[in-house]
Amino acid sequence: MSENAEGAAPPPGTRRPGGRTARTRAAVRDAVLTGLAEHGYPGLTVEYVAERSGVHKTTLYRRWGGLEGLVADALDLAGEDTWAPPDTGLLDGDLRALAREVCEAFGDPAAAAAPTAFIAAAFQSERAADALRAFYTERFGRCEAVVERAVARGEAPVGTDAGAVVRAVSAPLFLRLFVTREPVDTALADQSAAAVAAAVRAGAFTPSTGAGTATATDARTATAPPRTPR
Amino acid sequence: MSENAEGAAPPPGTRRPGGRTARTRAAVRDAVLTGLAEHGYPGLTVEYVAERSGVHKTTLYRRWGGLEGLVADALDLAGEDTWAPPDTGLLDGDLRALAREVCEAFGDPAAAAAPTAFIAAAFQSERAADALRAFYTERFGRCEAVVERAVARGEAPVGTDAGAVVRAVSAPLFLRLFVTREPVDTALADQSAAAVAAAVRAGAFTPSTGAGTATATDARTATAPPRTPR
Repeated sequence: MSENAEGAAPPPGTRRPGGRTARTRAAVRDAVLTGLAEHGYPGLTVEYVAERSGVHKTTLYRRWGGLEGLVADALDLAGEDTWAPPDTGLLDGDLRALAREVCEAFGDPAAAAAPTAFIAAAFQSERAADALRAFYTERFGRCEAVVERAVARGEAPVGTDAGAVVRAVSAPLFLRLFVTREPVDTALADQSAAAVAAAVRAGAFTPSTGAGTATATDARTATAPPRTPR
Repeated sequence: MSENAEGAAPPPGTRRPGGRTARTRAAVRDAVLTGLAEHGYPGLTVEYVAERSGVHKTTLYRRWGGLEGLVADALDLAGEDTWAPPDTGLLDGDLRALAREVCEAFGDPAAAAAPTAFIAAAFQSERAADALRAFYTERFGRCEAVVERAVARGEAPVGTDAGAVVRAVSAPLFLRLFVTREPVDTALADQSAAAVAAAVRAGAFTPSTGAGTATATDARTATAPPRTPR
């Protein structure tokens, strides 16, 4: 995302990793996260980030272009962690752990504030939406290892759509958290994981049998176009 | 929701259905929807609603309490439609139709603008969040008929969690639309419907077998430690 920074300024934080620029970027990122957690996207200002980070406002505008760039870069940086998906040795256990992690991450108000603000910001800023898409594409990409290992162990059919599986597991939680505004809990996480695992075993996430009751031939000749790459 | 209107003012629109009050309420609702579609929640003002609806600002404040009350009431009114879930005669067909409807509703930018603004408003207003929860609880409640008919036909196990099923079907679409900001299409809708239908048939949405490969006892005694929040 930082390559898309506005104007001709160098992308923030990419020149001297570990050096002063990286430290500045981290300080600015921390200020953005704190500001998002405290005030949400609508209440966040460049002035706040400057005061909180100790980086001058003109520097922020020059390097990040403004508020949208600051938020997008904070999200880029959030994706540069070492998080790895669970590895319990079983598909069910891994999917359950993934689902529970969503519950727990958003169940703690303090921990949830900044990620929630990112999701909210995407409604108001195309740039935040792009950064959020990049973040989740990469994050769910890491999760796919869970499905690939299950395929390797013979727990899931070859050709299982790993990206769809890992999204389907957490989707009912995200739906309740950010659309229907209903409560989530561990039981719901476990139910979602069990349902998706059952669907995987039934071959519902395998393109050739993905139409459920339809036969493989039906699926191939159906007028529905092939899945576009996401 | 209108029972929760702030202050001692009578709930808007509830006194004379079909009369002047109902017409005023509908005019105000239309103005709110138009305003949300054009400006989103952060840009909507009581002044805009007054100008657009022809209802005086002081009346709006008196009856609805302010912007939050206006948005909540518009959502209440949106839930008072005659929408009914599909009835294709088969669980797979019904779930597919439900999922496709989400795709279509949010695939048309003009049609999607107001509902999207409601979802966005819930991030900023507790009252909008409450109204959204009430709206979706009622809406998904209607969808449960799809599962109840499938149980009656013997297509789904007795005791299938209908609320969880209908939410699971649309959840992967809502996730991509409003969290990961990824594209959705009919193929994705069909995949989600087929996966949930397969899980229903496997009994994964029936409480007694909801833990997938784990037994009920396993689920009760599971000691998997909670993941650390990110």
